Amino acid sequence: MSTTVRAAIIGSTGYGGVELIRLLAGHPQVDIASVVSSSSAGAPIAEGFPHLNEIRTELLDDVDPALLKSKADVVFVATPAGVAAKITPSLLAEGLKVIDLSGDHRLKDRAEYETWYKKEPAGQDYLDQAVFGLCEIYGDAVRGADFVSNPGCYPTATLLGLVPAVKAGFIDPASIIVDAKSGVSGAGRGVSLGNHYAEINENFKAYKLNKHQHIPEIEQVLSDAAGRKVVTTFSTHLVPMTRGIMSTMYATVTGNRTYDDFVSLYRNYYEGRHFVRIRRDGAYPATKEVAGSNYCDIGFAVDERTGRVTIVSVIDNLVKGAAGQAIQNLNLMMGWDETLGLRFVPVYP
Amino acid sequence: MSTTVRAAIIGSTGYGGVELIRLLAGHPQVDIASVVSSSSAGAPIAEGFPHLNEIRTELLDDVDPALLKSKADVVFVATPAGVAAKITPSLLAEGLKVIDLSGDHRLKDRAEYETWYKKEPAGQDYLDQAVFGLCEIYGDAVRGADFVSNPGCYPTATLLGLVPAVKAGFIDPASIIVDAKSGVSGAGRGVSLGNHYAEINENFKAYKLNKHQHIPEIEQVLSDAAGRKVVTTFSTHLVPMTRGIMSTMYATVTGNRTYDDFVSLYRNYYEGRHFVRIRRDGAYPATKEVAGSNYCDIGFAVDERTGRVTIVSVIDNLVKGAAGQAIQNLNLMMGWDETLGLRFVPVYP
Amino acid sequence: MSTTVRAAIIGSTGYGGVELIRLLAGHPQVDIASVVSSSSAGAPIAEGFPHLNEIRTELLDDVDPALLKSKADVVFVATPAGVAAKITPSLLAEGLKVIDLSGDHRLKDRAEYETWYKKEPAGQDYLDQAVFGLCEIYGDAVRGADFVSNPGCYPTATLLGLVPAVKAGFIDPASIIVDAKSGVSGAGRGVSLGNHYAEINENFKAYKLNKHQHIPEIEQVLSDAAGRKVVTTFSTHLVPMTRGIMSTMYATVTGNRTYDDFVSLYRNYYEGRHFVRIRRDGAYPATKEVAGSNYCDIGFAVDERTGRVTIVSVIDNLVKGAAGQAIQNLNLMMGWDETLGLRFVPVYP
Amino acid sequence: MSTTVRAAIIGSTGYGGVELIRLLAGHPQVDIASVVSSSSAGAPIAEGFPHLNEIRTELLDDVDPALLKSKADVVFVATPAGVAAKITPSLLAEGLKVIDLSGDHRLKDRAEYETWYKKEPAGQDYLDQAVFGLCEIYGDAVRGADFVSNPGCYPTATLLGLVPAVKAGFIDPASIIVDAKSGVSGAGRGVSLGNHYAEINENFKAYKLNKHQHIPEIEQVLSDAAGRKVVTTFSTHLVPMTRGIMSTMYATVTGNRTYDDFVSLYRNYYEGRHFVRIRRDGAYPATKEVAGSNYCDIGFAVDERTGRVTIVSVIDNLVKGAAGQAIQNLNLMMGWDETLGLRFVPVYP
Repeated sequence: MSTTVRAAIIGSTGYGGVELIRLLAGHPQVDIASVVSSSSAGAPIAEGFPHLNEIRTELLDDVDPALLKSKADVVFVATPAGVAAKITPSLLAEGLKVIDLSGDHRLKDRAEYETWYKKEPAGQDYLDQAVFGLCEIYGDAVRGADFVSNPGCYPTATLLGLVPAVKAGFIDPASIIVDAKSGVSGAGRGVSLGNHYAEINENFKAYKLNKHQHIPEIEQVLSDAAGRKVVTTFSTHLVPMTRGIMSTMYATVTGNRTYDDFVSLYRNYYEGRHFVRIRRDGAYPATKEVAGSNYCDIGFAVDERTGRVTIVSVIDNLVKGAAGQAIQNLNLMMGWDETLGLRFVPVYP
Repeated sequence: MSTTVRAAIIGSTGYGGVELIRLLAGHPQVDIASVVSSSSAGAPIAEGFPHLNEIRTELLDDVDPALLKSKADVVFVATPAGVAAKITPSLLAEGLKVIDLSGDHRLKDRAEYETWYKKEPAGQDYLDQAVFGLCEIYGDAVRGADFVSNPGCYPTATLLGLVPAVKAGFIDPASIIVDAKSGVSGAGRGVSLGNHYAEINENFKAYKLNKHQHIPEIEQVLSDAAGRKVVTTFSTHLVPMTRGIMSTMYATVTGNRTYDDFVSLYRNYYEGRHFVRIRRDGAYPATKEVAGSNYCDIGFAVDERTGRVTIVSVIDNLVKGAAGQAIQNLNLMMGWDETLGLRFVPVYP
Repeated sequence: MSTTVRAAIIGSTGYGGVELIRLLAGHPQVDIASVVSSSSAGAPIAEGFPHLNEIRTELLDDVDPALLKSKADVVFVATPAGVAAKITPSLLAEGLKVIDLSGDHRLKDRAEYETWYKKEPAGQDYLDQAVFGLCEIYGDAVRGADFVSNPGCYPTATLLGLVPAVKAGFIDPASIIVDAKSGVSGAGRGVSLGNHYAEINENFKAYKLNKHQHIPEIEQVLSDAAGRKVVTTFSTHLVPMTRGIMSTMYATVTGNRTYDDFVSLYRNYYEGRHFVRIRRDGAYPATKEVAGSNYCDIGFAVDERTGRVTIVSVIDNLVKGAAGQAIQNLNLMMGWDETLGLRFVPVYP
Repeated sequence: MSTTVRAAIIGSTGYGGVELIRLLAGHPQVDIASVVSSSSAGAPIAEGFPHLNEIRTELLDDVDPALLKSKADVVFVATPAGVAAKITPSLLAEGLKVIDLSGDHRLKDRAEYETWYKKEPAGQDYLDQAVFGLCEIYGDAVRGADFVSNPGCYPTATLLGLVPAVKAGFIDPASIIVDAKSGVSGAGRGVSLGNHYAEINENFKAYKLNKHQHIPEIEQVLSDAAGRKVVTTFSTHLVPMTRGIMSTMYATVTGNRTYDDFVSLYRNYYEGRHFVRIRRDGAYPATKEVAGSNYCDIGFAVDERTGRVTIVSVIDNLVKGAAGQAIQNLNLMMGWDETLGLRFVPVYP
């Protein structure tokens, strides 16, 4: 009755990959069939991640589509951008289901990808085939799909906070400004001066203002929601913490909508969707309130003095912003309850 | 076959209590039947803990043994020391199973309790009845018990690191020195200048040198293991982090035992016990490698120059040092697999 | 030629007061003549601040204007809002110079104060007399003044980042949105659940959206700069760090001004002002780059796609945002070089 | 009367070098004449350290003894171990005074250096010539010296805490166990997975147990103090903070010495030495109480139950543990007050 799916994880030695291992280890209908790393193939996964000692004892596989086909039904691709586009065609050709956590299959327009990523884009047919897996917005398209492109961390927090208001015409899309903040794990496990502890601790930084590669992904979805081309001002900041994203979003309210109007709109829009929680009490969500979990919490402030709404949206960048949403997508692809294996209570404090 | 147990949690608004909620929410054979708080009775639990929004929607109950009896089979008492001793008799009188997470029933000697806790001790019959629930050491006594005293956080990390060596005579018990370090959550949610963020962040403090109330608990068990009275030098330090304890322990090695001897001894001693992981590769465990999980990881350094062993033991103070071990005790009390509902992969990074 | 001024500090047991002690201890022309605390009078200052052991050995004085007159020439008032308004008249009546670090004398309009502070405002004559000591904007008025109201921390970072552009008409004042972030020391040393380490660490929070009491102070100065009433959208966030403020500011650019135009404008505006540093290299300042110092660093991003400028401004909230600027004001009041005693290199890392 | 000394800093792009710049910039009798970096020669120092913008505008010099001779009187060598030994002879040959902050000239025994550093040791004549600059212990030898080897960070905190007791015979030298903890800046600015923010934050690690290269340095001085060969158990731990070292030290007390005896002994020993502060009130120093300053604070606990003393010693590793003590050594070498340019109040909070 309850099929067990065998999963492979490419990029198991990155933070996204190792978070997939953590979450899939507790999923009732998934077996981790292969952990894959091109850079560390042959080594035990626990060698680089001692927290996995005695939990995952297998050796890392190399990237080999035929081998993966023999072991797995679905492949999570948690590689850097540029790599996934090269691997995916052979995985699909083997008949494997693919969930790509990189940015390689999110933008439908190859020119946009080249502009923002400065890399060779994936083939147009693959871009056309990939379903953009922002579950609460495009869940219907994900159901039954074989190839899903998992959204970026910033876009997930941002779009879940904006789409209902844009779709309903509650805000002027041209007025949207997004001030986003992220913990350091979002930059991955690669070493650089930029993630040296002594440079980050007790420090707050702005980076890539109007230049982050997640901007076209956000605009693609907002344009889809608005029915016309939307451009946004988008800033990213680095917070001295490991996990968590907050997007603080500003927009001009149309037609005298009130705080209660926004709360009602969003509660209706996300009716029945377990992982979006709308704050109703005038409080704003904080990142720790979703830490380690797949929730996205959203709060509002409507200011009559300025006619603007401020929308605050938080996620755990490694869960709802990466591994958790990828599993939510798997659940939808398989026709399961989207919350399967994901009903974690946030880790607090 | 698989009975479901109904659990009540007294002290639900403290960090230990709210961690019990997090862990029990995922336990396959436990229902959270009542969350109890004398200070906040009548309010929704999520009011003070927004991370529980839409997850736990019930109101907090007051402390009422008869009410608890009507709702629950087992009560976790996660109150401050001094309170548990007063509540427990009436809970036991109602026929409820009790797991006390406070320090009130750990010391068998009432005078010791008075000396270290400066409070009225529990009655001697309750002290005699309470099984000291350090699962990997006293698990046999816990199996089938109705009343368990859950160990302190420092004693858990320290004793799991020392008992095998003391029992086997590998170290001189009189030489033991324990240098312990804890994250801030160990001090609870009560506000004070001592846990003000700006006083703790980017700071490392020593406190209660030789005066911590966990000392007699440690010495009680070490004396039991050694077969003679043991006193120890015990220091506690506050680390600018939320979760985690490390005990670094020093002792004089007897009879030229080597690093390999220690590893073998501990691996044998903890054979079949899922939650103790012995590091074998010359590496030492770090607190984050057990974060959010019920593991206790232990490593060793034997120094021929000085004839001493250094033992490093880490736990998550809120899991293995409190709520996790309490559930492990429940599992043993019920005759279940001790790992039921506790096989979390540590949250890393 | 070089007079030594005797200074008293009321509110010496708060973070602003103790930072004044740190900075004044190194000022070549100031003697700390009295440290004052109504709550701890009679105790040694080092009792509550062990870092001052053997550095400041005097006892705390009570608030006594006549006593202060006998000891001091100038009084720094670093009390909570509401207290300064009550103390100041008697200090001025004694002929003491006063620098008020609280919010009590910043707003010229008593009704505004009541609306935002929910407290009894200071007398109108005192409000009229107090010079708003944002040194780089109103320095001319401060020179020779006897009574200065020291700006708030958020307004300092925000206004130094906005005023030149508003004055020059480079941005549309009606379009200004400020997304501000602060370390925890900004909330003072009083204990509360809101500054408990375990609640703040690894957490990022939004608070007081459009409701912060610094909003009218910002709008008062922006209106003055624009020559018409300006209202702003202003959000505040709490960063898991002790010191530092960043204001990220958004506005619509007028007349196709470029990045270079903004840099030139600001460099000209702040010509000769030591403590404002304009970043010219496309990089944005980070809070740690001004930590422990009196600098305000400002950077820009102009986005042609959206027609908006993003301005990033950082300060150390306890220095340029409080004690440092207060001393800078003293320097101006005394006719000294404004950098006297303040040429600290930021503490990095 | 007051000569100004011209100083060069080799290794200006490391944390020790940049801290020398911060401190020397405020020294009344030192001019920074050259900042030197072999890796970044020709670039402005502020390029890699934006906090120095507009403060230090010169370009980095290459390592060139003749050039340095033309510009400077004294050279601070803040390079990694192994490099200083190669550079120093030519600097001394030019007649420059040298203060070496690396470990290359601390151990008098070349074989010891090879064993612990795994590098080619300096020549024996240089080792003989170098004065070990632990100012409060060997200050008399430093006065007038031309070549000083600046102590390591761990040895500074540890030895200032132990030497008086060892010299006075208050403790048994064979019983000494040192449990040391350091912030991350101690590992330098080089990037590695070991100092990646996400790996360090909310984590506490033990490393190099009994294997740290500072052990022979500590034992060399303790042996000198004891008049016989001393070996110690020495553990190092990494604390999630940027600055600060605490050494918690354990030893068996001889002859029933009490807490008061220890306080008296240490107060007498450090009489007149500004930078050592002995805590007298039963409290223990915390690292933040010396942050940014040149202080070493020491506290004691004597335990009658075990007959042991616990000594707690804290420093800022980059100041008293590196740059500050180097300047203190310069002051002594020049015959100045040892506190010149170093009377900073600790930065708190």
